[in-house]
Amino acid sequence: MSFRFEILHTSTDSRARVGRISTSHGSIDTPVFMPVGTQATVKSLTPEDLHGLGVQVILANTYHLYLRPGHDIISAIGGLHRFMHWDQAILTDSGGYQVFSLAKLRQISDQGVIFQSHIDGSKHLLTPEKAIEVQEALGSDIMMCLDECTAYPATHEQCETSLNLTIDWALRCKQGRSTDRGAIFGIVQGGMFEDLRARAVSALADIGFDGYALGGLSVGEPKEMMLEVAGLALPLLPESLPRYVMGVGTPEDLVELVSLGADMFDCVIPTRNARNGQFFISTGTMNIRNARYKGDPGPVEAGCACYTCRHYSRAYLRHLFMAKELLAYRLNTTHNIHYFMTLMSNMREAIQHGRISLFKRDFFSQRNS
Amino acid sequence: MSFRFEILHTSTDSRARVGRISTSHGSIDTPVFMPVGTQATVKSLTPEDLHGLGVQVILANTYHLYLRPGHDIISAIGGLHRFMHWDQAILTDSGGYQVFSLAKLRQISDQGVIFQSHIDGSKHLLTPEKAIEVQEALGSDIMMCLDECTAYPATHEQCETSLNLTIDWALRCKQGRSTDRGAIFGIVQGGMFEDLRARAVSALADIGFDGYALGGLSVGEPKEMMLEVAGLALPLLPESLPRYVMGVGTPEDLVELVSLGADMFDCVIPTRNARNGQFFISTGTMNIRNARYKGDPGPVEAGCACYTCRHYSRAYLRHLFMAKELLAYRLNTTHNIHYFMTLMSNMREAIQHGRISLFKRDFFSQRNS
Repeated sequence: MSFRFEILHTSTDSRARVGRISTSHGSIDTPVFMPVGTQATVKSLTPEDLHGLGVQVILANTYHLYLRPGHDIISAIGGLHRFMHWDQAILTDSGGYQVFSLAKLRQISDQGVIFQSHIDGSKHLLTPEKAIEVQEALGSDIMMCLDECTAYPATHEQCETSLNLTIDWALRCKQGRSTDRGAIFGIVQGGMFEDLRARAVSALADIGFDGYALGGLSVGEPKEMMLEVAGLALPLLPESLPRYVMGVGTPEDLVELVSLGADMFDCVIPTRNARNGQFFISTGTMNIRNARYKGDPGPVEAGCACYTCRHYSRAYLRHLFMAKELLAYRLNTTHNIHYFMTLMSNMREAIQHGRISLFKRDFFSQRNS
Repeated sequence: MSFRFEILHTSTDSRARVGRISTSHGSIDTPVFMPVGTQATVKSLTPEDLHGLGVQVILANTYHLYLRPGHDIISAIGGLHRFMHWDQAILTDSGGYQVFSLAKLRQISDQGVIFQSHIDGSKHLLTPEKAIEVQEALGSDIMMCLDECTAYPATHEQCETSLNLTIDWALRCKQGRSTDRGAIFGIVQGGMFEDLRARAVSALADIGFDGYALGGLSVGEPKEMMLEVAGLALPLLPESLPRYVMGVGTPEDLVELVSLGADMFDCVIPTRNARNGQFFISTGTMNIRNARYKGDPGPVEAGCACYTCRHYSRAYLRHLFMAKELLAYRLNTTHNIHYFMTLMSNMREAIQHGRISLFKRDFFSQRNS
């Protein structure tokens, strides 16, 4: 197995650290943000675009690829990397999250979960073993265990029942592997309860994974609660392994969570919001639909080095967006991914120079200005 | 005025010729196909993509840009080239064609045409003078006269009435110019009638233009009739100036019309059909939706040097298309534009080597194979 994680620098003024993950598809500098390529494509961009933006790892969704085109087809073509012409690392989720959020008619049992495809209504059984089989067929570099993402709000009892299932499934995922190619991460559930989060970490660590993720965050709870739970759970995770906060988040979330010791993130917001006309900028966000940009000759953000800001005015971007032109989604996505990549790279540098607290203060003061 | 046309080579075995148009935004090798960038963007592609595909000139639609974002806004940003970040040549149409095909509530008078925007229903008056004013504001390299594109079928009398209007408007367009920047082309109408086409050429030549276009073709008439009318009209046009067949056409049309002496073409089919999943290949066309491509590991066309064929399988392209992924439109468009550009470049080479007839025979025999 070629998966390895080294910590290169530990922050002196927070729990943040800089590291490097090695995979058989290149290395990943952490803390890292992983753009989401749901259906074997980061919407509107080519792999060359992603290379140019400094992306080292993307997330692909097992649920979607299992249903369409099917993991068997992707496997026959030579795996997901070849299928989508991406030669760097790919993290795949287990499919569980989408089964619980997108599919219809779900029946959970100890065995797994029966669901109906959101595309054609066909019935499928997703088990922990199947989740691993599909991810192995895709040729994933980092696989995730099948878990039940506990909803919010949920009682202690509901969270505990759900957690027991997740821990049982985690063991079966680990045992279900047929090769040692790629890494496998366990997912810590337990709702907003500290004792359950602690139990989850301990049970998963007993099984033994290559990295650990916090799941069940950003599922509707107040932001302070998300940060509090992450702040409690992150230090419980094995120090020497990557810590991944799933489905998070905004630039503000990333800055907070890096300081709390998180190494990996994924979220659709830079890409999805781009397609809704929302740009991330140093003072927060701006929506290009706003009529005030109609004749604005300036770039989205002065000084931004991205392709979009170097060559196009707000007036042009607003025009493309209002006309629903395909290029709008591409140029907007380019800027937002560049924003997220630059944010992460600036944080890595700040950690290495012992000034992540300063970075964080400046970051938030720009947003309140 | 920096517009110039030189004929570099005249075919010995047909009326085809190879030439070069010089503009203040670079030169254009003819015969040339101009991709359509309706709303200041060739759908899904960046200018850098177009450079990479060998595109030297694009067509932009005055009607669309006049209505949204408005020529005044584009002019204030520094003109269309700067607005869309395209530094090579731009040909603009007059807006007339879209007024007749897209807009509502049209009233034609000697003065011009009153129409309602297809976007918001607002009322506008397009006159020959206005068509030139808007094209000048855009900073067009090649402007087109406002004409009435005669429908098919139409009687001789209808065509003659319409042609009289077009000739009157052509004179007003020429007189309406406020600078000598950019070139202006006259448009030959006259329906399917040889005498009217001849009268149109002679009347326009008396006014004097930098190039001449055949309009009113590919408007519903049988293909043989289109080629017959083009075959009659093209030799009537001044030999030393560019000859442009508007709104045409398929690869087959291009091969026929180049042999008949046409130098310039524009058409939405490579781009629009790409977005519908249709690829142009040496044997004709293929539609990527076809279930037979579901697991096909081969490229769209073996041996094709385009980015799409070099890196992606039919299986992947089908997946993207079925999933309505934005990247599908971009990859499909890339292949089709490459196909059209390569076709034109191969024809230019064949003309220079005195073998355009041979090229044409091979081209059609591949399609019938």
